[in-house]
Amino acid sequence: MIITLLTDFGTSDSYVAEMKAVLLSSAATAILVDISHQVAPGDMRAGQYLLGRAWKHFPRGTVHVAIVDPGVGTERRALAAEQDGHRFVAPDNGLLSFLPKDARYVSLPVPASAAATFHGRDVFAPAAARLATGAALQDLGAPITDPCFTPLPVAKHDHLTVIGEVIYVDRFGTLVTNIPGDAIQPGARIRIEDSEAGSLRRTFRDVARGALVAFVGSGGTVEIAVRDGSAARMLGVGVGAEVRA
Amino acid sequence: MIITLLTDFGTSDSYVAEMKAVLLSSAATAILVDISHQVAPGDMRAGQYLLGRAWKHFPRGTVHVAIVDPGVGTERRALAAEQDGHRFVAPDNGLLSFLPKDARYVSLPVPASAAATFHGRDVFAPAAARLATGAALQDLGAPITDPCFTPLPVAKHDHLTVIGEVIYVDRFGTLVTNIPGDAIQPGARIRIEDSEAGSLRRTFRDVARGALVAFVGSGGTVEIAVRDGSAARMLGVGVGAEVRA
Amino acid sequence: MIITLLTDFGTSDSYVAEMKAVLLSSAATAILVDISHQVAPGDMRAGQYLLGRAWKHFPRGTVHVAIVDPGVGTERRALAAEQDGHRFVAPDNGLLSFLPKDARYVSLPVPASAAATFHGRDVFAPAAARLATGAALQDLGAPITDPCFTPLPVAKHDHLTVIGEVIYVDRFGTLVTNIPGDAIQPGARIRIEDSEAGSLRRTFRDVARGALVAFVGSGGTVEIAVRDGSAARMLGVGVGAEVRA
Repeated sequence: MIITLLTDFGTSDSYVAEMKAVLLSSAATAILVDISHQVAPGDMRAGQYLLGRAWKHFPRGTVHVAIVDPGVGTERRALAAEQDGHRFVAPDNGLLSFLPKDARYVSLPVPASAAATFHGRDVFAPAAARLATGAALQDLGAPITDPCFTPLPVAKHDHLTVIGEVIYVDRFGTLVTNIPGDAIQPGARIRIEDSEAGSLRRTFRDVARGALVAFVGSGGTVEIAVRDGSAARMLGVGVGAEVRA
Repeated sequence: MIITLLTDFGTSDSYVAEMKAVLLSSAATAILVDISHQVAPGDMRAGQYLLGRAWKHFPRGTVHVAIVDPGVGTERRALAAEQDGHRFVAPDNGLLSFLPKDARYVSLPVPASAAATFHGRDVFAPAAARLATGAALQDLGAPITDPCFTPLPVAKHDHLTVIGEVIYVDRFGTLVTNIPGDAIQPGARIRIEDSEAGSLRRTFRDVARGALVAFVGSGGTVEIAVRDGSAARMLGVGVGAEVRA
Repeated sequence: MIITLLTDFGTSDSYVAEMKAVLLSSAATAILVDISHQVAPGDMRAGQYLLGRAWKHFPRGTVHVAIVDPGVGTERRALAAEQDGHRFVAPDNGLLSFLPKDARYVSLPVPASAAATFHGRDVFAPAAARLATGAALQDLGAPITDPCFTPLPVAKHDHLTVIGEVIYVDRFGTLVTNIPGDAIQPGARIRIEDSEAGSLRRTFRDVARGALVAFVGSGGTVEIAVRDGSAARMLGVGVGAEVRA
């Protein structure tokens, strides 16, 4: 049984390890896989993007623990969810909005003994361990049908133009957009804010060093990059920048 | 069997992986869990704080490998220790001072073939693998009763005031103190150096954005944070700053 | 079965996790070990150095996945290799040049469905999973004998002087050279560019705080460090700096 972890905790402190200790104390044979712990503190959009693209690559049965939780310790609910045989635990703050609206959700009880600032360790890890060791979703809490739902923005059509935006910037400075690769007309030229990135190429090497290049990235949407460089730095843009094709 | 690793090696180089290679070569079924490799080079206090709070969350039987070792290759001894069913290997430089003074210790032999700058790989990982595969503490070396013992400072009482200090700063810029949560009088106001952090709250959201907040953290001691910000940056203080309550 | 991963993907994004998802989907019992994901983007020399020193510490049978791949999606071949019972998958760009020239190599087919910018997930991880679950090297592709071969520079002798260079800088700012420890004459003084690092010592503590020190490092070659400091920063040098002994 695989349990993945995505948090904004970083890897300097012991927080992630304490969650893993709790997971392995109950689910001794679980295989733990880090998705990322480098989500910027409180950046729900980045967390949603990363888990939203990664989860489908894992086998059914996987349990995903997602903690970007600025409201920890308040009245915000704690959730577990199920979709396509995958299970998720996360705060009810929109982090799981990549799931379809009709996914199954339950509300997790928060024990009084839980540290008010660390539900990752004291609420979500125990729930994930139960799911990984055979509990069904409904064993964990009462069903709910109104989870916080704040999906990432979707690209729109304006006549023949697709208008989207940058939804994530990766470690290479590549600008990931929300424009599906198959929404692009053959030969259409991609513009980002005031810059021109040409028509879709296959990969970086199809342009000269230092040049802008647009291609359909590994997440299935258009990405804008600089060969051997950083598009984010070269263009001075980031999440929210408008992209037209 | 779980083996945890805490070092100041960072994750850019191959050092941690070489230790894991040695561990898995002998203890093929061990589950390896990183606690942190981002301890600042030689920062024994941070290493001691992190392992000191994390180890208890792991199940009995876990072996903890702790390497913050500026004296590597000198005459400083190499240790293995046991407490409450957990086992530890570490240089004899105070890194394990979170253990009680009467924990059991042995001194590990250092083979002549060990790289003088990498006992983590050549001394401690082999010892940890032996512990993880059934060796008893006394099989690894001769008992000693005088390990280097340099525990983190402890908060003191001055009449009704508790006086402590910041002992760790986490990735969020939260200032972790050595004042136990239950040492605080109800309603007492927390001061850090010249700033006032109010009385204890439950969590970040109990104050306005950008405000200072004090609460009992997930390690059981008072922490001082800024909601959606960094207390370390806002106050310009770090480890050693005085805290009164 | 162990599968190691070395990439220049960083750990902020979901790329490494997506590779691990693919690996575990086919090789469910594999033990995954990260060597490093912090190789600077496209830095083939650093990748080659790190994997070149780490792989031998793993047990025979280990599969090593190495992805530093600026030419992804172009006509560059994809490789699998075998040496001393270890298996490797990597782009054909010299990254595996630490292997002897007569190691066994095959060329991996690249399915049309592979994302042109993410062969790590869509070409190399599936190949590694096959090797980890029993496939033989020749099952994966056609043998080739002309892999790209660009080994790290080798130290030379000029009369009694050994002339080498810095081939890697580690997290501590230690300058790792390509001069084998046993090539140094007893008492020989080590020079790096215009600075003098003295004769070989055993370890950091053999000099005063802040002083330069040369020793035979844990990879078997001469390293130049500063006790409790960074030689790279103090000397202002890096990869390629000339070292004489």
